[in-house]
Amino acid sequence: MNGQKKIVLSESQIPAQWYNIMAEMPNKPMSILHPGTKQALKPEDLYPIFAEELARQELNQTDMWIDIPEEVREKYKIYRPSPLVRATGLEKALDTPAHIYFKNESVSPVGSHKLNSALAQAYYCKKEGLTNITTETGAGQWGTAMSFAAKVFGLELAVYMVKISYEQKPYRRSLMQTWGAQVVASPSMSTKAGRKILTDHPTYQGSLGTAISEAIELAMQTPDCKYTLGSVLNHVSLHQTVIGLEAEKQMEIAGEYPDIVIGCFGGGSNFSGISFPFMRHNINDGRKTRFIAAEPASCPKLTRGVFQYDFGDEAGYTPLLPMFTLGHNFAPAHIHAGGLRYHGAGTIVSQLMKDGIMEAVDIQQLDSFEAGVLFARTEGIVPAPESSHAIAAAVNEALKAKEEGVQKTILFNLSGHGLVDMTAYDQYFAGDLTNYVLSDGDIAKNVSVLEKII
Amino acid sequence: MNGQKKIVLSESQIPAQWYNIMAEMPNKPMSILHPGTKQALKPEDLYPIFAEELARQELNQTDMWIDIPEEVREKYKIYRPSPLVRATGLEKALDTPAHIYFKNESVSPVGSHKLNSALAQAYYCKKEGLTNITTETGAGQWGTAMSFAAKVFGLELAVYMVKISYEQKPYRRSLMQTWGAQVVASPSMSTKAGRKILTDHPTYQGSLGTAISEAIELAMQTPDCKYTLGSVLNHVSLHQTVIGLEAEKQMEIAGEYPDIVIGCFGGGSNFSGISFPFMRHNINDGRKTRFIAAEPASCPKLTRGVFQYDFGDEAGYTPLLPMFTLGHNFAPAHIHAGGLRYHGAGTIVSQLMKDGIMEAVDIQQLDSFEAGVLFARTEGIVPAPESSHAIAAAVNEALKAKEEGVQKTILFNLSGHGLVDMTAYDQYFAGDLTNYVLSDGDIAKNVSVLEKII
Repeated sequence: MNGQKKIVLSESQIPAQWYNIMAEMPNKPMSILHPGTKQALKPEDLYPIFAEELARQELNQTDMWIDIPEEVREKYKIYRPSPLVRATGLEKALDTPAHIYFKNESVSPVGSHKLNSALAQAYYCKKEGLTNITTETGAGQWGTAMSFAAKVFGLELAVYMVKISYEQKPYRRSLMQTWGAQVVASPSMSTKAGRKILTDHPTYQGSLGTAISEAIELAMQTPDCKYTLGSVLNHVSLHQTVIGLEAEKQMEIAGEYPDIVIGCFGGGSNFSGISFPFMRHNINDGRKTRFIAAEPASCPKLTRGVFQYDFGDEAGYTPLLPMFTLGHNFAPAHIHAGGLRYHGAGTIVSQLMKDGIMEAVDIQQLDSFEAGVLFARTEGIVPAPESSHAIAAAVNEALKAKEEGVQKTILFNLSGHGLVDMTAYDQYFAGDLTNYVLSDGDIAKNVSVLEKII
Repeated sequence: MNGQKKIVLSESQIPAQWYNIMAEMPNKPMSILHPGTKQALKPEDLYPIFAEELARQELNQTDMWIDIPEEVREKYKIYRPSPLVRATGLEKALDTPAHIYFKNESVSPVGSHKLNSALAQAYYCKKEGLTNITTETGAGQWGTAMSFAAKVFGLELAVYMVKISYEQKPYRRSLMQTWGAQVVASPSMSTKAGRKILTDHPTYQGSLGTAISEAIELAMQTPDCKYTLGSVLNHVSLHQTVIGLEAEKQMEIAGEYPDIVIGCFGGGSNFSGISFPFMRHNINDGRKTRFIAAEPASCPKLTRGVFQYDFGDEAGYTPLLPMFTLGHNFAPAHIHAGGLRYHGAGTIVSQLMKDGIMEAVDIQQLDSFEAGVLFARTEGIVPAPESSHAIAAAVNEALKAKEEGVQKTILFNLSGHGLVDMTAYDQYFAGDLTNYVLSDGDIAKNVSVLEKII
């Protein structure tokens, strides 16, 4: 390391290709099924909703490397390559023999890794001749990323933002508007789906499921308009592999290789991004790196859910996905890591989990904030509440290494900063936050809905 | 450029020394005077308030280069060197032949350039054996920087935050608390100065002047405690020269030299930081670079103030400084660029202005936001309202170059991002912001107070 704190690559070292782990998986993900016919989906079935190239990427299980379009790489240069940082301050505070590194995705102008896929998606939509796109956003990370990406490629964007977030996270709404997006609180009167819910439940505070329904409906009814999504799907994970591909080169410069790779886990986009490029060396080269998905204890699909076909949305409109899930009707507690409140895991991660290629831990809300504050005070960056779950898992592993007296190399993904999440920190310091414990009975009850699906 | 968007230096290229322009100025700044005796101050006179090394730096007019302590350089590595970015998106939107570069100081974990001096000040305080420090903050940029710097060097910090900001900018307050500082709304009951004002005016919303008085009083009455300040003073400008020293190397890599260097202007810290290292080539090597301080039209000390001895604070407690000023009793409008609401300019900048080595422009509030939004939509980064003044000045120069059909190279300092200033953008989009026009009579009336001073 020669005393280096950050390992920085040049722009020419931005990856030229994304890594498609599906081509190398010992067991491929099971097919995505049409919800009506229960037949395996073909790319064409997805063309009405997604840009055609994205639909093809979604189901591509053969091409290991997919070229990143030059126009997208050009825009990546705005913030990529992101630094790999040795967390020397954190190591010292923990007095651990472990070497802790983090990939700093918070340097993106939108403050998170989400822009890696947003730029790709906006590019393919533009290239297909579209003029408009739609999306939904819960906590707001994806919506902000898509807002800037749409502007950069000259597309008009409508974002359906879950109403409770629209009201509680005004800064994220303002950011989207600053980048030029139309932001609508969901449920809204602008779609049939929204009007129906508002008629039945005038005070409904919204959900990701409803926002997805509204965004898809608007896309279907608007000429030259398609829908975009920021997590869970295979093409999103694909785009996020730039994180791990860069980190691989940077770890090599550091002269180390990770024993443990950690990402927080919502739908899987940032965990996949940091993990898959390293996982390929477990699959191919006999490496024994551990991959840990850090999910919130309040939404533990990987640690306590079941592997089953389930819908991607609450209302049950989407194709059926083979996934670890708590049931699409699962209503997670209102934790501050809004980006991790999703009932299922993407199909690739679910298969990898089933095959024992990766593992998962659940993190309590208070532990995530304790780790986040320690990180802020030692490394400077105030982490997003989502990212603090990865930090907490890294801290646990570093303390274990100390206890065992072994030098481990730990790499985690800092998916974003928390500068627009400060109300969450206020509530933590005020003692207003709690942990959430789910009983086995609660989980079994939710999961029981899956029996009727397939 | 070879298509490079960002020019990035390695950590070993972080400057080893700060540049002290006072050693090379054709006319040195006039003496700072004791307010009682009207005698020139010596460093010892400042020891009771400031760390001794900082007091010596403040009055050092002879040493051109001052070593940056290794411990400070080590902490600079958390975010430095900061990137120099070619604003290709902005250039394209303006359709200008000008090459526009910006130094991106928003990458600091606290979101602005203020950390460059905060780390240095915290280090010298710690080295002197202090355990506690105090400071004040208006908009909150300096307070957040000092909070992290104090934590990093193991000092306890008390921040007096102007009450109206404390209430209107809760995110900045939260950030300071997250980094472990004690934040007190000023005026407060914790000091004699605060109690007096609260007794006389129970609903007083606070001012920077009052907060300074409170912070100094607490420092004087606490053992092993001194006071720190984030702008105006010579030692602050000195520390900020890391910005321009890095930019100089980066422009060389880009194969260009700036025709114009621009910084927004409050007390002078970021303008000095980006300008002084380039200014030395005007002074010594016959370069003809123009240096433009971009100040708000609502607080135009450089463009419409007078050069006179004046107090640094509203109450008239500080030493007398030879400065361009609007009078220490000047009450600027409540523009959103809170960091630029200061009545005077630092003594070095004031002398340089007097000698015609630099110039200044005033920017209207609405023009600053228009430029800031254009920048966000083309370069991704949402700028701090303060920095948007520099962007507006750069846009004006780029459009002038287009009109004249000449290729100019423009460099400006992006002093910080605006992610915790989104309420300002909301108000801009809602049409709730206005311009401010000061009449000559208003200015003359304020300035008349100076006649009695010396």
